[in-house]
Amino acid sequence: MRKIFEQELQEVQSRLVELAEGARVIMKKGTGAFLNSDVAMADEALALADSNERKALDLDELVIKILATQSPVARDLRILVSALRMSASLERMGSLASHIAAIARYRFPGSAIPESLRGTFSEMAKIDLELADKAVALLQNPDVDLAREIQARDEAVDLLHRKVFDVVLAPTWSENAMYTVDVTLASRYFERFADHVVDISSKVSFLQTGEW
Amino acid sequence: MRKIFEQELQEVQSRLVELAEGARVIMKKGTGAFLNSDVAMADEALALADSNERKALDLDELVIKILATQSPVARDLRILVSALRMSASLERMGSLASHIAAIARYRFPGSAIPESLRGTFSEMAKIDLELADKAVALLQNPDVDLAREIQARDEAVDLLHRKVFDVVLAPTWSENAMYTVDVTLASRYFERFADHVVDISSKVSFLQTGEW
Repeated sequence: MRKIFEQELQEVQSRLVELAEGARVIMKKGTGAFLNSDVAMADEALALADSNERKALDLDELVIKILATQSPVARDLRILVSALRMSASLERMGSLASHIAAIARYRFPGSAIPESLRGTFSEMAKIDLELADKAVALLQNPDVDLAREIQARDEAVDLLHRKVFDVVLAPTWSENAMYTVDVTLASRYFERFADHVVDISSKVSFLQTGEW
Repeated sequence: MRKIFEQELQEVQSRLVELAEGARVIMKKGTGAFLNSDVAMADEALALADSNERKALDLDELVIKILATQSPVARDLRILVSALRMSASLERMGSLASHIAAIARYRFPGSAIPESLRGTFSEMAKIDLELADKAVALLQNPDVDLAREIQARDEAVDLLHRKVFDVVLAPTWSENAMYTVDVTLASRYFERFADHVVDISSKVSFLQTGEW
C-alpha cells in the first residue's frame, strides 16, 4: 500500500513540475509577444494557457482520487492539500502570462510598450522567467535555500512594479491613455505571476521545515 | 462517527458563510471608501481583509483536520476539497476589495474617480455587492437557480469593465495618467471579485448536480 502511495505521490510531483514548465513556456511566449509585438507567439501563449488549465484540473482529480483511496494523514495529507494549492497557483500563472500575450495581441502591429518603459519591462520579464525556472527546479527538488532566493527575487519585481507607476505618474509622462492602460495592467500581471511563485515556495518551505 | 462528521461539515459551512460575510463587508467599506473618498472606511476595509485572511487559514486547518480524522470519500470528500477552494476565493475577494480601498486611500483627500466614470463605477460597485450578498445566500442554502443568476450578473460586471476601457480609450478622455491608472486597476479588481463569486457558484452547482 505504502509503495503504491509513494508512486502516486511521485506522479503528483511530476505533474506539478509539468504544470510549472507549462507556466514557464507560456510566460516565455507571453513576454516574447509583449516585448517584440509578435502576434504568432501571443497566439501560442493563449492556446497553451488553455491546455495548462486542463492539466491543472486533471491533477486536481488525481489528488482527490488519492485522498479517497489512501486516506493519508499528517505530512502525506499536507503534501496533497499543498499540491491542490500549487496546482491553482500554476494554472493562474499560465493565465496571467496569457493576459500579457493578449495585450500584445490587441496592440499588434503596434507595440504595447512605450520606449521609456522598455528597459523596465525587459527586466521584469527576465526576473519573472527566472522565477518560473526556479519554481520548476523547486518542485523537482525541494530546497529551502532556493525558496529564500525566490522571495528575494520577488522583491525585485515589486520594485520594478512600483517603478512603472513612478514613470507613469511623473510629470514627464506624455504617452496616451492606451499606453497607460496597457503598462498598468501588464505590470500588475508580472507582479502577480511573481507572487504566485512566492506562494509555491512558501508551501515547499512549510513541507520541508514545518514553519510558515 | 457520521454524526460528528455532519457536525464538522456544518461547522465548515458556517465558517464559509462567515468568510463570505467578511468579504461582503470589506467590499461594502471598500466601495464606500472609493466612491466617497472616505479614508476611515478605507482603513476599516484594510484591517478587515487581514482578519479575513487569518480566518481563511483557520478554516483550511479545520478542513485538513477533518480530512485526517474522518477519511471522507465520494461526495463528502469533494465538499471538503471545494471548501478549500472556496476559502481561497473568499480570502482573495477580501483582498481585492481592500485593494479598492487602498486606491481611495492613496488619493485622499482627492477622489480616484473622474466624474465621467462615476456612474459606471457606482453600478459596478452595486452589482459586486449584490454578488457578495448572493455568495452569502448560496453558501447558507445551496441553490442551483441562484448559481445561474450569479453567472448572469457577472456578465453585467464584464460589460461595465469593458465600458471603463471604452471611456478611457476614447478620444474624449482628457484625464491625467493618475486617473487612468486608478480606474484601470479598480475596474480590474471589481471584475476579479465578481469572477471569484462565479467560481464559488460553479462549485456549489457541481456539488448539487455533479455537472460542471
